[in-house]
Amino acid sequence: MFPQTAPRTTDCLRPAPDGSGPAESATRFAPGPAATLARCRELVEPALRDAVRGLHPEPGRIAAHAFGWCDTDGRPSAGSGGKGVRPALAVLGAEAVEAGADVAVPAAVAIELIHTFSLMHDDIMDGDERRRHRDSSWKAFGTGPAVLAGDALFALAVRTVAEVDDARGGPAVRQLASMLAELVHGQADDVRFETRPWTGRDAVSLAEYRAMATRKTGALLGCATALGPVLAGAPARLSDALAQAGREWGLAFQAIDDVLGIWGDPAVTGKPVHSDLRRGKKTLPVLAATAANPSLGPRLERLLGGEAPPDEAGVKCAADLIERAGGRERALREARAWVVAARDRLRAAPLVTPRVDELVALSELLLDRQV
Amino acid sequence: MFPQTAPRTTDCLRPAPDGSGPAESATRFAPGPAATLARCRELVEPALRDAVRGLHPEPGRIAAHAFGWCDTDGRPSAGSGGKGVRPALAVLGAEAVEAGADVAVPAAVAIELIHTFSLMHDDIMDGDERRRHRDSSWKAFGTGPAVLAGDALFALAVRTVAEVDDARGGPAVRQLASMLAELVHGQADDVRFETRPWTGRDAVSLAEYRAMATRKTGALLGCATALGPVLAGAPARLSDALAQAGREWGLAFQAIDDVLGIWGDPAVTGKPVHSDLRRGKKTLPVLAATAANPSLGPRLERLLGGEAPPDEAGVKCAADLIERAGGRERALREARAWVVAARDRLRAAPLVTPRVDELVALSELLLDRQV
Repeated sequence: MFPQTAPRTTDCLRPAPDGSGPAESATRFAPGPAATLARCRELVEPALRDAVRGLHPEPGRIAAHAFGWCDTDGRPSAGSGGKGVRPALAVLGAEAVEAGADVAVPAAVAIELIHTFSLMHDDIMDGDERRRHRDSSWKAFGTGPAVLAGDALFALAVRTVAEVDDARGGPAVRQLASMLAELVHGQADDVRFETRPWTGRDAVSLAEYRAMATRKTGALLGCATALGPVLAGAPARLSDALAQAGREWGLAFQAIDDVLGIWGDPAVTGKPVHSDLRRGKKTLPVLAATAANPSLGPRLERLLGGEAPPDEAGVKCAADLIERAGGRERALREARAWVVAARDRLRAAPLVTPRVDELVALSELLLDRQV
Repeated sequence: MFPQTAPRTTDCLRPAPDGSGPAESATRFAPGPAATLARCRELVEPALRDAVRGLHPEPGRIAAHAFGWCDTDGRPSAGSGGKGVRPALAVLGAEAVEAGADVAVPAAVAIELIHTFSLMHDDIMDGDERRRHRDSSWKAFGTGPAVLAGDALFALAVRTVAEVDDARGGPAVRQLASMLAELVHGQADDVRFETRPWTGRDAVSLAEYRAMATRKTGALLGCATALGPVLAGAPARLSDALAQAGREWGLAFQAIDDVLGIWGDPAVTGKPVHSDLRRGKKTLPVLAATAANPSLGPRLERLLGGEAPPDEAGVKCAADLIERAGGRERALREARAWVVAARDRLRAAPLVTPRVDELVALSELLLDRQV
């Protein structure tokens, strides 16, 4: 499952210095990622706001806060919502199969609604108090209202795609429904893995991790890139290639997220340093390091296992051990390899080249986060 | 909106003594409700169990507990799930338009999944610790796992209907999606009403209550009766009549639920006596009583309003005032009137008579609860 095209450099998140990297080629034929995101946002956001405006005012204001449109009191805010990468993938996916961007708008809206629903509910499950540098929904509005607001976004997403009233709405809803089932399955795995040991027969394997990340993170990105083409009635081999590339980006994104979850700067990530280790999360850096160095597992079990939460010194020591065993580097290398695999897959498919270039440039952006 | 056909008797939940009531006519042409429920359960439950078996094991075991199939440790239990009225409505709805019951199975499965999803999440929002005489999902398994299990059932329901891969799956998914949006809207209203005053300009009106109950309770029952016919490709006027009857049963059901929420026997309902009053719920008995006796509102505000939870004596006094002002009787009468309206609607439509009789008998069962 893991792609074999890992590059030699360990500086995995930047284009290769010889200019042959995807970011370089993208700028030659297509607008840069910032322009792409701005164009797609302009296309999608009015429809997204319209959809959210149709909600009951209570879940509506929680959603508006989560999207960064309002503060907790409902006053318009400058916004610290997401970058809008997922809806942009939906638009570019449709354009890559020569469809008009407008065909992709319901897909883009649904994907952004599902993404936000999953953040709202995941933050409840994980007890995360901060999201995008503001209080998470449950922290700001209470658990019950955040559960309901998530449900409202979920229902609205299904409705948005279901209401595309032609022969293509059906396949699109099936794609969406299948993704939703995967998303929940992946989240259940991720939560379950927290209680499994760091070593021994019951330890989480790399294969199990990748299956989890494919569901938890890959399914949504794969659906984002494929849903526009499905709505446009594109041939299955094209939408499948885009779906697969999206899933690979998801794996790359999750690998970076895992690195940030251990070594990310709290001022940037908004989470305490080492938070994933403290919580027992079985992330890629840990699993890659223990796979390469089997003696690391029992040491991590001693430092992080047991009933009581691990102490600060133990967590710091575990992070250092994982880094010295190459866990951080391996995770970054794997992320890069997934991005390369997705790029090669798309370049081999009969898709509109400048849109593929934009997609590839966006996938770089997805990885280019503060590690 | 309120039907004008309220019967004169105040004993609203039993067939009229002259034998002209619907339960009597049902027994003449169709099996009794117990036989109907058993037949439909036999049809639907294997598919429901198959669907739930496909879930991740963690949400799967929470779902199995909620359906009454297992105890909290996953051991098979004798079962105290629901009666299965909603899936039976889906089967009978399809049969009433001369379709085979098998057509309705995905609809029945989806409806039961959504019903259980909504109970799981509503119990979190309402802080209800008991459901069907066992711990509610969040109480037994924790809030996070119960949120996720609800999401899993939601996604599975959408998938179940979306995978009906023909021209009828599309309209069915649209019906389901529209119902889900209503369900969430109704729940948001119900929660919001708790914080509104018992009297004055901002008090909840009967019209607002009925709009809320139509969404919160009627939408799911309306979808239950109509989804089978939609999947069977029945003419819209038939599925619309069935949907409307289902919504009316929903209003009736909610009215009875409201009566139980104030005067129900805790040993039977599993909830403390007067629980809805203590929580500030704006239920039909209260609203009907204050509409008929405007001086009641300020008295309820004194007894139940304010920041602190009302004391036991105040709640008891409020319940007595509401009963003396005719709130209980009016709510029961309204429930009966909705059931009569639904019965008349279905009898006027060109539907299969014995199946209509079974539906009517089931609607009686829906109301025949310990008050």
